[in-house]
Amino acid sequence: MIIDIGLNQATAFAPATVGNVAVGFDILGFALDHIGDRVTVTRSARPEVRILAINGADVALPEDPSKNTATAGLVRLIADRKLDFGFDVTIDKGIPLGSGMGGSAASAVAAIVAASALLEERLPLPDRFTYALIGEAVASGAAHGDNIAPCLLGGLTLVRSMDPPDVIRIPVPPAINCVLVHPHMRIDTRTSRGVLAAHVERAAFIEQTSNIAGFIAGCFTDDRDLIARSLRDVVIEPQRAHLIPGFAAVQKAAFAAGAMGCSISGAGPSLFAWHGPDIDPAELSAAMVKAFATVELKADAWHSSVNGLAAHLVER
Amino acid sequence: MIIDIGLNQATAFAPATVGNVAVGFDILGFALDHIGDRVTVTRSARPEVRILAINGADVALPEDPSKNTATAGLVRLIADRKLDFGFDVTIDKGIPLGSGMGGSAASAVAAIVAASALLEERLPLPDRFTYALIGEAVASGAAHGDNIAPCLLGGLTLVRSMDPPDVIRIPVPPAINCVLVHPHMRIDTRTSRGVLAAHVERAAFIEQTSNIAGFIAGCFTDDRDLIARSLRDVVIEPQRAHLIPGFAAVQKAAFAAGAMGCSISGAGPSLFAWHGPDIDPAELSAAMVKAFATVELKADAWHSSVNGLAAHLVER
Repeated sequence: MIIDIGLNQATAFAPATVGNVAVGFDILGFALDHIGDRVTVTRSARPEVRILAINGADVALPEDPSKNTATAGLVRLIADRKLDFGFDVTIDKGIPLGSGMGGSAASAVAAIVAASALLEERLPLPDRFTYALIGEAVASGAAHGDNIAPCLLGGLTLVRSMDPPDVIRIPVPPAINCVLVHPHMRIDTRTSRGVLAAHVERAAFIEQTSNIAGFIAGCFTDDRDLIARSLRDVVIEPQRAHLIPGFAAVQKAAFAAGAMGCSISGAGPSLFAWHGPDIDPAELSAAMVKAFATVELKADAWHSSVNGLAAHLVER
Repeated sequence: MIIDIGLNQATAFAPATVGNVAVGFDILGFALDHIGDRVTVTRSARPEVRILAINGADVALPEDPSKNTATAGLVRLIADRKLDFGFDVTIDKGIPLGSGMGGSAASAVAAIVAASALLEERLPLPDRFTYALIGEAVASGAAHGDNIAPCLLGGLTLVRSMDPPDVIRIPVPPAINCVLVHPHMRIDTRTSRGVLAAHVERAAFIEQTSNIAGFIAGCFTDDRDLIARSLRDVVIEPQRAHLIPGFAAVQKAAFAAGAMGCSISGAGPSLFAWHGPDIDPAELSAAMVKAFATVELKADAWHSSVNGLAAHLVER
């Protein structure tokens, strides 16, 4: 039981997430189990944000609170609400940086969830979404909520609109699970967005809309075959695949090992694969890791549901 | 009860349909009540198709069976199956030509449903879809199944793929109904396709995918507010609106009269509007007809469910 009246310090955990999910560029995402970032926020006397420590990051992250993904939303919160107190922030990264696993979203969400617990009244969900988006925008150069939404709500989510926030939970067929494979390289989100053409060919637009529609219908009807037929990205993946050495081989290995679908997690370089109950996730992930090895990339793998918990307060 | 063994003649009714449905260009469609085409097919001795009569058409339709939308699929059927008999065909048009109400799809579907009843074994549904598509392609210059699918299956449908056919029924929230207004002018489907750009801007692509996903989710959860927020076409409608005099005024009138959504039916010029149970369809359609009158266009209106019956055999 966490008592939230007069709280001076709170710690929140926010899960890693897979954005885009092949057919929902910038709008679909799902939360992973276990892996995530933690942020501890302590009330301070002056209305400002200070970053006390950043742990677990293997590259230097911005120490200016208005430029750090975890704290940019808090800076805005203090200004918007004219708070007479501030926040001291400690960030514990559990998600590899530049992995495409929603690390910036997780830091932003964990910070706002923790800070919200220190307010007289907790922020309503749409406000938490909006402040977390500010942090995400600092990281990627553009606000997009496909990682923020599942991080805040858990499970699989659709962001129909960011302003005003319109986020819809999509039911996850219970027998579907996920393998996530993270090769030891980094892709900056800005780079990954920079390779995208400004336009989509009409035929690809039609195919992708039919795939996202089939995917959503498959989730609501628990139709795994329909989901498998629909989970194909004909728009974004072909433009980004070249950024990930071995992409084609890893995806091929995933399908050969029985994956329902396999595509880039967020901006990459991680790949996710969905699979049914007849597939051993250890065999699936081993096949994908092995394929990365053929291009001399080491890779880590996680097995997870596609129904990870929402960000939540935890004991420090 | 219709006995289909040794049948020498069959008549099928196929409903008018609304294609595109704002957010599903070339993939979504729904069937209307009551209005539709009828086609009567009689077995003939020689393996060829003859058009005996075309009734109810106010412009000349092709009399060459391989160029007529109702019969082109039958010509192919005879060739594919090496039939030793043929079909004499009478077409009774009930759907105004060039209205955007799926008239060519209805003729093609009615013909194949009637002809199928004359075969030793009726054609399976995917084959009926494929042969009806051949007729539709003759009419519009390109095969697309958004009218064929609801015409064959009834209700609201998604065509995820045409080849192989992958058609999904989408549940229709029972309290939603439709008004369809047909101004007295014609737009050729080829013209209406010709104005479309070859590419879609990425931002519009993202918005439209989020709208179709929200629309499908809203249909499955019977969430009328979500459907209303989602039923917005930011890709196709802006490119075609200028083909329909008074479009902006009619759409504005529909929203002012309480429509959940209002957009172009298929290739136009008809407009459809969805509405909830709190709206009087007579008032809604009157508002739309009145708006067309401001640009000196007479218009007819229909009130319908969005859950019209599938094409079916009828008494002559």
